[in-house]
Amino acid sequence: MTPSAQPPCVFCEIIAGRAESSLVYQDEHVIAFMDIQPLTPGHLLVVPRSHADYLEDLDEDLGACLFRAGHRLARALRRSGLPCDGVNLFLADGEAAFQEVFHVHLHVLPRTPGDGFRIKAARHRPGRGELSLAAAKVRQGVRALPD
Amino acid sequence: MTPSAQPPCVFCEIIAGRAESSLVYQDEHVIAFMDIQPLTPGHLLVVPRSHADYLEDLDEDLGACLFRAGHRLARALRRSGLPCDGVNLFLADGEAAFQEVFHVHLHVLPRTPGDGFRIKAARHRPGRGELSLAAAKVRQGVRALPD
Repeated sequence: MTPSAQPPCVFCEIIAGRAESSLVYQDEHVIAFMDIQPLTPGHLLVVPRSHADYLEDLDEDLGACLFRAGHRLARALRRSGLPCDGVNLFLADGEAAFQEVFHVHLHVLPRTPGDGFRIKAARHRPGRGELSLAAAKVRQGVRALPD
Repeated sequence: MTPSAQPPCVFCEIIAGRAESSLVYQDEHVIAFMDIQPLTPGHLLVVPRSHADYLEDLDEDLGACLFRAGHRLARALRRSGLPCDGVNLFLADGEAAFQEVFHVHLHVLPRTPGDGFRIKAARHRPGRGELSLAAAKVRQGVRALPD
């Protein structure tokens, strides 16, 4: 192994058929399979076939395909017989956002009351002035996007 | 007010310009504005202009537009000057999944280390047999989707 050699991307290995997975859906753009460490029973992942570490590297059309599949799978979970009273779609972009595998993926999580999944955050209620200032900064960020 | 009268949808009111919002983006399909009870500073929402209570009611093409906007806004947040080392995209479909406003919306959350946002879940590690059984059920759910 040379110093520059990277371990293979686990999702690329699954896509190539060199690693095991429990497949639920595939098309020419994306595949979906069960998460091996589910946060709730039935937790699955949708993954673009083409490798992208982050949203920044992901083609927008491919992102739309990713979401289309996630949308369909959310509706499929409600018809699957698995316990599913609700669904969360979740995407973590960057280590600070809890991304663990650096190949973009969309989590699809079936939810039931009392399933133990919780979000904790220090929700606050800023004034309109603070919100408008933040909005101005986001609009500046939109203008800074490459064409 | 007749017994059948419903309170107006707060997001439809924003879309119609009858309720205040701090707008960050709009196009013919979606609008995006700051969440008034942000989970992290800069937390924003992307909303389809056309009302849909749940993912089940949301047109697939419109869902793709929703995600395209969320994808762009995630990239914009990293260029906005707001603290942003990562981004979470989050969608809650159904009360069991923490949906609070029953007009589909995609949360876009800038993240920084130590921002107080946490996910708690009882992560377990099922065997391949259990995963394959769940996958078979999801595939059955996919087949049960209307064309």
